[in-house]
Amino acid sequence: MKFCSTCGAPVEVRVPPGDDRPRHVCSGCGEVHYVNPRVVVGSVCAWEERLLLCRRAIEPRRGLWTLPAGFLEQGETTAEGARREAWEEARARIDVRDVLAVYDLPHISQVQVFFRAPLLAPDVEAGPESLEVGLFAWDAVPWDDLAFPTVRWALRHYHATRDQPRLTPDVRTAPRP
Amino acid sequence: MKFCSTCGAPVEVRVPPGDDRPRHVCSGCGEVHYVNPRVVVGSVCAWEERLLLCRRAIEPRRGLWTLPAGFLEQGETTAEGARREAWEEARARIDVRDVLAVYDLPHISQVQVFFRAPLLAPDVEAGPESLEVGLFAWDAVPWDDLAFPTVRWALRHYHATRDQPRLTPDVRTAPRP
Repeated sequence: MKFCSTCGAPVEVRVPPGDDRPRHVCSGCGEVHYVNPRVVVGSVCAWEERLLLCRRAIEPRRGLWTLPAGFLEQGETTAEGARREAWEEARARIDVRDVLAVYDLPHISQVQVFFRAPLLAPDVEAGPESLEVGLFAWDAVPWDDLAFPTVRWALRHYHATRDQPRLTPDVRTAPRP
Repeated sequence: MKFCSTCGAPVEVRVPPGDDRPRHVCSGCGEVHYVNPRVVVGSVCAWEERLLLCRRAIEPRRGLWTLPAGFLEQGETTAEGARREAWEEARARIDVRDVLAVYDLPHISQVQVFFRAPLLAPDVEAGPESLEVGLFAWDAVPWDDLAFPTVRWALRHYHATRDQPRLTPDVRTAPRP
């Protein structure tokens, strides 16, 4: 960040009065431009015993398998975001239910929230960000070709709690890669 | 947002190629400036049966009672943020444990994550953003003077689940006020 998005003057990095850490402060109008972590929302979606996975058509980790997930948008609830991502990436219609996991990724300033979300129908197909999508039995999950550790964690917690009507989310911090 | 924070040229609002919603796009360098929801982290902190509340010294809702909570910072985990806020607002040292609640506030593009977090010591004192702080028995909670509905929800869920070693978080969407 070099320029003020409000007035166009250069910004400087300094600790504003009453604050305790450096911020981007406009040298012209004085506005403080806060930068904050972003939220990723996703789901473990199942049809009967099979789990939805998407093979990534985009970087990072192109070609590897992931859960439908993406950045939460303005004005959206986490459940709405999870539904939107399942549709965008896998043309899947899902019933977003319980909070399955909350993962912190502080090295990239991200909080990931995963839901348990049964598929409403088994019809899925690759959206523009997926090379292919599929429904996998537990023993057929491509464990060696998963895109991110959080995908593995969420799948395992889903499996371990699949018979529980109410669940305690998996909470973890991802190590710096 | 009127100017590009990278190059200082004016931004325009339009749908970038391959996207499905309007974004702030720089008319000079072409950078897309995404705006995303922010995360608030907070805690229900208890010493024995008493609950920590802070009377707000700042707007909005100055003078009303709240839980220690605030915006998650870059590079921080949700638990670290909750610990920092408890210290900043109430000079409280806490043991951040379970995810107690996940609240969506789509009208202000906020996701609030509350933890169950026992106090490590009963010594608390108002930080700069609090007029006063106190430890309240359940029957002494100032229900009519709470700052936000999410404070009431988090307190109630804490109370309802206080004897459960593992808990299912309360998940809700705040209605537009």
